[in-house]
Amino acid sequence: MNISIILAAGEGTRMKSKIPKVLHKICGKPMLEYVLRASKNANIEKNYVIVGHMGDKVKEEFNEWDVVFKTQPIGEEYPYGTGYAVMQAIDYIEDHSNVVILYGDTPLITGETIKKLIDYHENNGYDGTVLTAHLEDPTGYGRIVRDSKGQILKIVEHKDATEEELKIKEINSGIYCFKGEKLKRALNNITNDNAQGEYYITDVITILKEEGSRVGAYAIEDSNEIHGINSRVQLSFSERIMRERINKEHMEKGVTIINPQNTYIEPDVIIGNDSIIYPGTVITGKSIIGEDCIIGENCRIEDSKIGNGVQIYSSTITESTVGDECKIGPYAHLRPNSHLGNKIKIGNFVEVKNSTIGDNSKAGHLAYIGDADVGKNVNIGCGVVFVNYNGRSKFRSLVEDNAFIGSNTNLVAPVIVRKWGYVAAGSTITEEVGEGCLSIARARQINKDGWVERKGLKRE
Amino acid sequence: MNISIILAAGEGTRMKSKIPKVLHKICGKPMLEYVLRASKNANIEKNYVIVGHMGDKVKEEFNEWDVVFKTQPIGEEYPYGTGYAVMQAIDYIEDHSNVVILYGDTPLITGETIKKLIDYHENNGYDGTVLTAHLEDPTGYGRIVRDSKGQILKIVEHKDATEEELKIKEINSGIYCFKGEKLKRALNNITNDNAQGEYYITDVITILKEEGSRVGAYAIEDSNEIHGINSRVQLSFSERIMRERINKEHMEKGVTIINPQNTYIEPDVIIGNDSIIYPGTVITGKSIIGEDCIIGENCRIEDSKIGNGVQIYSSTITESTVGDECKIGPYAHLRPNSHLGNKIKIGNFVEVKNSTIGDNSKAGHLAYIGDADVGKNVNIGCGVVFVNYNGRSKFRSLVEDNAFIGSNTNLVAPVIVRKWGYVAAGSTITEEVGEGCLSIARARQINKDGWVERKGLKRE
Amino acid sequence: MNISIILAAGEGTRMKSKIPKVLHKICGKPMLEYVLRASKNANIEKNYVIVGHMGDKVKEEFNEWDVVFKTQPIGEEYPYGTGYAVMQAIDYIEDHSNVVILYGDTPLITGETIKKLIDYHENNGYDGTVLTAHLEDPTGYGRIVRDSKGQILKIVEHKDATEEELKIKEINSGIYCFKGEKLKRALNNITNDNAQGEYYITDVITILKEEGSRVGAYAIEDSNEIHGINSRVQLSFSERIMRERINKEHMEKGVTIINPQNTYIEPDVIIGNDSIIYPGTVITGKSIIGEDCIIGENCRIEDSKIGNGVQIYSSTITESTVGDECKIGPYAHLRPNSHLGNKIKIGNFVEVKNSTIGDNSKAGHLAYIGDADVGKNVNIGCGVVFVNYNGRSKFRSLVEDNAFIGSNTNLVAPVIVRKWGYVAAGSTITEEVGEGCLSIARARQINKDGWVERKGLKRE
Repeated sequence: MNISIILAAGEGTRMKSKIPKVLHKICGKPMLEYVLRASKNANIEKNYVIVGHMGDKVKEEFNEWDVVFKTQPIGEEYPYGTGYAVMQAIDYIEDHSNVVILYGDTPLITGETIKKLIDYHENNGYDGTVLTAHLEDPTGYGRIVRDSKGQILKIVEHKDATEEELKIKEINSGIYCFKGEKLKRALNNITNDNAQGEYYITDVITILKEEGSRVGAYAIEDSNEIHGINSRVQLSFSERIMRERINKEHMEKGVTIINPQNTYIEPDVIIGNDSIIYPGTVITGKSIIGEDCIIGENCRIEDSKIGNGVQIYSSTITESTVGDECKIGPYAHLRPNSHLGNKIKIGNFVEVKNSTIGDNSKAGHLAYIGDADVGKNVNIGCGVVFVNYNGRSKFRSLVEDNAFIGSNTNLVAPVIVRKWGYVAAGSTITEEVGEGCLSIARARQINKDGWVERKGLKRE
Repeated sequence: MNISIILAAGEGTRMKSKIPKVLHKICGKPMLEYVLRASKNANIEKNYVIVGHMGDKVKEEFNEWDVVFKTQPIGEEYPYGTGYAVMQAIDYIEDHSNVVILYGDTPLITGETIKKLIDYHENNGYDGTVLTAHLEDPTGYGRIVRDSKGQILKIVEHKDATEEELKIKEINSGIYCFKGEKLKRALNNITNDNAQGEYYITDVITILKEEGSRVGAYAIEDSNEIHGINSRVQLSFSERIMRERINKEHMEKGVTIINPQNTYIEPDVIIGNDSIIYPGTVITGKSIIGEDCIIGENCRIEDSKIGNGVQIYSSTITESTVGDECKIGPYAHLRPNSHLGNKIKIGNFVEVKNSTIGDNSKAGHLAYIGDADVGKNVNIGCGVVFVNYNGRSKFRSLVEDNAFIGSNTNLVAPVIVRKWGYVAAGSTITEEVGEGCLSIARARQINKDGWVERKGLKRE
Repeated sequence: MNISIILAAGEGTRMKSKIPKVLHKICGKPMLEYVLRASKNANIEKNYVIVGHMGDKVKEEFNEWDVVFKTQPIGEEYPYGTGYAVMQAIDYIEDHSNVVILYGDTPLITGETIKKLIDYHENNGYDGTVLTAHLEDPTGYGRIVRDSKGQILKIVEHKDATEEELKIKEINSGIYCFKGEKLKRALNNITNDNAQGEYYITDVITILKEEGSRVGAYAIEDSNEIHGINSRVQLSFSERIMRERINKEHMEKGVTIINPQNTYIEPDVIIGNDSIIYPGTVITGKSIIGEDCIIGENCRIEDSKIGNGVQIYSSTITESTVGDECKIGPYAHLRPNSHLGNKIKIGNFVEVKNSTIGDNSKAGHLAYIGDADVGKNVNIGCGVVFVNYNGRSKFRSLVEDNAFIGSNTNLVAPVIVRKWGYVAAGSTITEEVGEGCLSIARARQINKDGWVERKGLKRE
C-alpha cells in the first residue's frame, strides 16, 4: 500500500493573494491538482492533503476528488513546520505502507519520478529515502552529504554547512518516501527545539540515521520537477515548464506547434495527427481537436470538439461541436451549445449560440444565429439576426434545408422558414415562410431628386 | 547637489531611421525617457541633455520635461567624442556638485544603481567613480585594471590591452560620477590627440589618476543595466529586458501574468491584486486595472480605467472607463470617451464610442453605440445602430432606463427613447419613443408562394 | 561546375505524419525549399534531389523548381543508407565538378556556408571536405579526429570512439564537398558490410584517406546551421531559429520588431524603413509593407501590398492592396482582391471582398463591402451590406464619389449609387440612386402608447 501526505497548508504570503496558494493555476488547473495527478500516475492509493490557511476553499475546490483532507491547526498557540504538518496525518499511516511526502506547491513533480522513488526505496529495502536533485546554484538548500561509497550520511542545512559542504550541489528536495512504522515512530521523536521553534520533517531522516535505520537518496535528472512556488514569478516559471511539457507531448504525437513558447494547451486536451496549431492560441478543458486541422493564431477553444480537416482562424469557440471540414473565422464566435455539421462556413463577425446547423450551410458575414435549428445547405445572409428575445423570454426558430435568408433580415422567434424558403433582404419576418415561398417585408424605394443639395449635405 | 549630463547626440546610423535614436521606443516610451526617470529616481536635481543629430525633434518630444537641452555642434569642423559632448555642459557644472554622466541610448540603467553609484562615490570621498560591470564576453570594452587591494589602477581600451588585461571581465560602462570641480578641470585638459581625433570622457579618469585625485570603481550586479542601443536588434533586446522587469514588478505585487515574455505592459500601468493577465495583451499609457479582473488574451487597453472583477477577452479599449464586474468581448471595441457603469455586458462585435452606459445594461452582439447616453437596464439588440452622422454633422441620442431596442434597428440621432420604451426589431426610429411605448417602423410581411421555383433559384 | 545532391528520401517516422518529412514547413515554406534556396545562393548550378517515401508528393510540390528528382528504391530488397542514396545520382556526377552533399531535413544551412565550404575545398585543392561544427554536447555524432597540425585524420562514429575521442567536440555535420571523379570512384567502393547493413557516405572519406587523396574539414561558426529535423520538436526549434534569422534581417534593415520571438514573417516579405511590427503578427507570402507603417498586434497579412504610413490593428488582409495612410481595424477583414486607395478608413467589424475603394472613403463600422466599386469620399454607414448574392449568382455594384450610404441599408446588386447620392438609414435599395438624390425605402414610425405595460414586458 502506497499513500501520500501532501502538505498544502502554507499561507503563501509572497503570492499576495486572497486565494490559497495551492489553488493558483498553472495551465488552467490548480497547482495542487498536478500533485494529485502525479500521485495517481504513481499508483498511490490514498492521498492525505494537509490544509491550513483558507483550507475550506481548498476542500471545496477538490470535493469531487478521492482525497482525505486534514486541517492543520494554525495560530500562535500551535507549532509550525513541515514535521508538524505531517503529524496531522499520523493516524492514517499504516505500518507497512510506503508514505510519500509531497507538496501542494510543487506541481512539476511527475508520477514517473514518484514511482521511481518508491521503487528505489523498496528495492533497496530503505526505511526512508530522500528525493534529491543537482542544482547549478544550490544556495539556501539543504545539502546531501554522502560517504565514499555514495551512501547518504546526512542532510546539512545551508546555514549549518561547512565551506566544503557548501560546495555540494546535490540538494534535498523535501520529498521523501518512508516506511510507515519508521515514519510514525520518528515523528513522535522530532522536536521543535530549534531557533525557529518549528518541527522539521528533515529531522525524521536524522532520527532514522541515528537509530541505525536504512536511509537512501534518489537523485532525479530534471531539477525543474522540484521547483516550488512561493511567488507569482515562480508561478509563471512553473506555468512555462508545464506548457512546454504539454506542448512537447503533442508534438511527439504528431501535432505541429509553430511556437511552443506561445501556445497554451491545458493538460487534458487531445489533438489529432497532422493538425497545426498557430501561436497565441488557447485550448482548454476537455477539448478534442481532430486530424489535419489548422488552428490559426489567436484562437480560444474551450471544452469543444472539433472534427477533422477543420480550419479556424482568430476565433473563439466555447462548449460546442464542429463537424469535419468546417471553416471558421477569422473573428467568429461559437458560444455554448452550438453544434455544427460538416463543411459549414462561419465567417467573420458571426456569432452562433445554442443552435444546430446542418451540413454545407453558410453564414459568411456579420450575423447572429441564436437559439435556432438551421438545416442543410442554408444560406444565412450578412447582417441576419435571429431575434430570440423579446425583453422577457427567449424563443427558438427553425430554418429548414436549402432556405435562403437575405441580408440584414430579422427572423423574429419563434418562427419557421420551410425548405427552399426565401427571405428578401431587409425583411423582418414574424410569420412562417412556406416551402419555396418568397417572403418580403420592406417598403418601396422612393427617390427624391435634388435632396442632397437642398439639405446642404454636400460635404467639403 | 547632484546633476546629470546625458549624452544623446549620437546619430545612430545603424538604426537606419528617420527618427533620432534616443526617441526610439521601448515599452511605449522613448528610450531617453527611461534615463530621465532613472535620474529622477536617484534624486538628481538637474538634467543636462546633450543633443546633436535631429536634436530639435528630441527637444520637442521632451518639451514638458524639466530638462536643459544643449546642442552639440556637429559637422566636419567640430570635434567628436564623448568628452566633447560633456564639454557642452561645462558651464552648468558647479564645483561642489556630483556630476553623473549618463547616456540617452542606455535606458536600462536604474535609479537605484545611479543612487548607489553616487553614494559609493560620496562615502568614499572619490573625485571620480567609474560604474563597472562584469561581462561573460568583454570583447571590445575598456577593462578595469585593479591593484592587489582592489583599487582601480586604470582603464585600458580593448585595443591597447595586454594578453593578461584582455582576460579581465570587469569593464567600463562609460557611466561615471565626478566631483564637479575635478571634472571641469580635467575636461579642460583632455585632448583629441589620438587615432580617431576624438575627445574621450575616459581620459578624465586618466587625468584624475595622474594628478593624484582619488578614483573609484563601483561594480553593478546586473550587467543588462548598461546595455547600450545602437541597432534595432539591441532595441528589441532592451525592450525584452524592460518588459520582463515591468512584468516581474506586477507579479511581485500580486498580479498573475501567464506568460511574462508575451505580455506588453507600459511602465505607468497600475494593476490590482489577484487580476490575471493572459498572453498577447497590450496595456498602455496611464491605464489602471482593478482587482480580480481577467484580462483575456490579445486585448489592447490604452489609457483606460477598468474596475474590479471585470472580464475582458480579445478586445480593444481606448481612453475609456469600465465599471465593476463588466464583461467585455470577445471582439468588442470601446473607442475614446466611452464610460460604462457596473455589471454591463458588451458582447462580440460591439463598438461603443463617446457614450455613457448605465448599470446592468447589455449590448450583446453586433451593434454600434456612438454618441449616446444609455441608461440602466437597457437592452440593446443585435445589429442596432446609433445613427449619429448625417453626412455633415454628428448628433447625440438618449436612451432612458429599462428601454428595449430591438434587433437591427436604427436610432437616428438626435432621438430619445424614454423609460421602458420598446423599439420593434427592424425599425428605423427618427422620432421620440414615449415612456412604455412601442415604436415600430417596418413593412408588413408578404408571402409569394412558388416564387423560388419560378425564379429558378433552386441551388444545386 | 558545382552541383548538389540533396538527400530527401527519409521516411521521418518520428514526425508521425501523412506528409513526407521534407514537405513539413518552417516559416511557411517546406523545409526542402530552404535547402534549395541556400544551394542557389551558393551559386550551385544543378540540384539533384533524392526522394523516396512519398517521393511523388515531393516532386509535385517542387514541380516548378529547376531540380532533377531521382527516386531511391525503397523496400526490403533494397539497401539503405546515405551512401546508397547518393549513388542514385552517380550518373549525374561529372569528373571535374564539385559535388556538395546536402540534406532535405537540414534547412538552416545557409548559402554563405555552402559557398565557404566550396571555396575552402577548392582553394586547398582537397578531394573531399567535411563540414564540421563544434557542439557543447556532441553525444551521438561522429567525431573529427585531427592530427597535431590540425589536419583531419579520420571521422570516428560515437559508438566506436575511445574515451579520449569522445571528448572531442568537433563533429561531422554529414555535409560534404567532393571532387566529382573522386566521389564516383569511392562510391563504387563503399560497402554495406556493417552491423546495420547500410551504405554510409562517411565511408567515402575513409576511402579517400586510405587511397591517399586529400581530405579537409571546414568548421562552421553557428552550429544551428546543421540542425537536422527528425521530429516535430526539432521542427519547432528550426522554425524558431529561422524566425529569429528573418526578423533579425528586417531589424538590421531598419524595421522595429517589438518581440522578435513572437512575430511570424515568411522569408520573401519586404518591409519598409521605420515600420513597426507588433507581436503576434503573421506576414506571409510575397507581402510588401511600406515605410512608416504600424502593424499592430495580432494581424495576419497574406500576399498583400501595404502602402506607406498605414496603420493596421488586429486585422486580417489577404491578397489585397492598401494605399498610403490608410487606417485599418481593429477587427477588420480584407478578403482577396480588395484594392484600397489612399487615406481610407476601414474600421471595426468591416469586411471587404473583391472590391475597389477610392481615396478618403470610410467604412467605419460593421459593414460588408463585397463585389463593389466604391468611389472617393464615400461614407459607408454602419451595418451596410452590399447584397451581392441572390442564392444563385453574384452581382457587382457601383457607388460613385461622395455618395453617402446610411446605416443598416442594403444595396442589392447589381445597383448603382450616383455621385452625391444619399441613401437613408434602414433602406433596401434595388434601383439606381441618382446624382444628388435621396433614396429612402422604409416604413413610417408608429408609436403604440402603453404597449409595454399591456404586453407584460416590464422586466424585473
